[in-house]
Amino acid sequence: MTTKIGILGYGNLGRGVECAVKQNPDIQLEAVFTRRNPSDVKILTDTAVVENVSSLEKYKGRIDVLILCGGSARDLPEQTPKAAKLFNLVDSFDTHAKIPEHFANTDAAAKAAGTLAIISGGWDPGMFSLQRLYANAILVSGKDYTFWGRGVSQGHSDAIRRIEGVKDAKQYTCPVQAALDSVRNGENPELTTRQKHTRECYVVLEEGADAERVEREIKTMPNYFDEYDTTVHFISEEELNAKHNTLPHGGFVIRGGKTGWNEETKQIIEYKLQLASNPEFTSAILVALARAAYRMSKEGQTGCRTIFDIPPAYLMAKDGEWIRKHLL
Amino acid sequence: MTTKIGILGYGNLGRGVECAVKQNPDIQLEAVFTRRNPSDVKILTDTAVVENVSSLEKYKGRIDVLILCGGSARDLPEQTPKAAKLFNLVDSFDTHAKIPEHFANTDAAAKAAGTLAIISGGWDPGMFSLQRLYANAILVSGKDYTFWGRGVSQGHSDAIRRIEGVKDAKQYTCPVQAALDSVRNGENPELTTRQKHTRECYVVLEEGADAERVEREIKTMPNYFDEYDTTVHFISEEELNAKHNTLPHGGFVIRGGKTGWNEETKQIIEYKLQLASNPEFTSAILVALARAAYRMSKEGQTGCRTIFDIPPAYLMAKDGEWIRKHLL
Repeated sequence: MTTKIGILGYGNLGRGVECAVKQNPDIQLEAVFTRRNPSDVKILTDTAVVENVSSLEKYKGRIDVLILCGGSARDLPEQTPKAAKLFNLVDSFDTHAKIPEHFANTDAAAKAAGTLAIISGGWDPGMFSLQRLYANAILVSGKDYTFWGRGVSQGHSDAIRRIEGVKDAKQYTCPVQAALDSVRNGENPELTTRQKHTRECYVVLEEGADAERVEREIKTMPNYFDEYDTTVHFISEEELNAKHNTLPHGGFVIRGGKTGWNEETKQIIEYKLQLASNPEFTSAILVALARAAYRMSKEGQTGCRTIFDIPPAYLMAKDGEWIRKHLL
Repeated sequence: MTTKIGILGYGNLGRGVECAVKQNPDIQLEAVFTRRNPSDVKILTDTAVVENVSSLEKYKGRIDVLILCGGSARDLPEQTPKAAKLFNLVDSFDTHAKIPEHFANTDAAAKAAGTLAIISGGWDPGMFSLQRLYANAILVSGKDYTFWGRGVSQGHSDAIRRIEGVKDAKQYTCPVQAALDSVRNGENPELTTRQKHTRECYVVLEEGADAERVEREIKTMPNYFDEYDTTVHFISEEELNAKHNTLPHGGFVIRGGKTGWNEETKQIIEYKLQLASNPEFTSAILVALARAAYRMSKEGQTGCRTIFDIPPAYLMAKDGEWIRKHLL
């Protein structure tokens, strides 16, 4: 069964989806929708077209699943429920605190339209969430830990760029090795924000900017940096472009639990991602979810779902017999 | 919703299930079924009864899910399809090569009886399989690695015990660090059996037995040891009982993959288990699967399933809203 998809938004994530589609012969890209002038957007896939977002409605019935590649802050809260009126869809909404609201809005729209929408795909939320769920279902008594990094946080990089005198910046979030070791050792420690992660900043200054002030403003920035041990490195634009031009990320989900009649037995589950490209990995997940969304829709399912609701086999192109034989 | 369970077979696994039930307030143990004389079997749960296996049929309608805790070699191939005629069930059938046949037999019996059977629960097959599936669905282009250990292999320990002159033995399977490092480094190496694992044996000899011969017989045993670097330590019975009296295990599932238009980006997914008790961890999974089996049965589903078919949320006692809020 071929799944015909559309991509809404052609940034890092949209391009990642396009690349992932190429690796999946049962998925076919029909169209990329952009807010820009379509003739200004060059895509990689010969067989797909670029359309302005205003043409979305014309594609109702011609696309099996729309993959939304916009941002969680400004795009998805409106886009997703609106798109659910026309298409089965997948998004990567990642503002944890607002997921219940986003779920409710999308569920209502999808149920009314008879479509199937999977929200919050990706790796966190997404694969990390799934690991937390499985680990909690198995080790009922225990403690969860999530560490991120070493990887680029785009939100933190943006926050630095907004400081006066900063020309460009990249911020890496790094797990603290001692904390990770303690968790892996089954000690189930109580950890403060500062004990779990450090922040490394690589900053290019505007000419004449006051480095000391910039460093102070970064380190004391509420929410973003004040609760962390932060190091700031001032480097040249050339060095930033040469050495910090990719978007690696990753992290760890660990649950330390106890089993046995008196909960005396230590059991530790760890899931680890080491990603050379955060957007390409996220995109690969979204494409697998698109396949699942279409299958669930074909079964007559409607409404909003998350990765928690999807039978794992629905993510794979191969059938049950093949999967049991080769992967079980 | 409370799920009433029965346990068939009361060895390490059966006792583990009983312990896991205690940690899950929505699961209730009704009865333990044994081939032994019930009055010879002492269980830990005051509120449950011990019955001879011949009484199984009497419990039809009084148990929501039967958890089969027998062995894959001799018990489950017959027991599971037979039990599926009476109950929803979960087993931990782990003879990989025979899973298709076991699935077909169980599926036919369960469909005819209108029951729901989940086979091959546990961690391998089970959680490891699930990780292979998710990783393959995401990283379409890549290579899978499974390492086991450091942990006790009961099959290998038994094989040593069958050698003349051996009084008792424990065998540990150990991953080779260099291989693990290479895989984690994304090198996607080709590894022989010998390059992946070593085998450590702790052996108690009968009085007067020929140590040299025993060591040679172990190291050259076909399938079990001949393809591995094996070390043999002769120790006293006291030392074996003091230092090797638990059943730790674990391992790693790693997929090294590539994403990007030209598959130029390295992405690595790793899942790791560190288990102080293999049977207690396996049991904890079986209990979560029992909850899922009952839910699927309540929906009217019948036939055979594996962990690949189960929406992850079905494994948790909490509802969707709670799970999305706390784990997504």
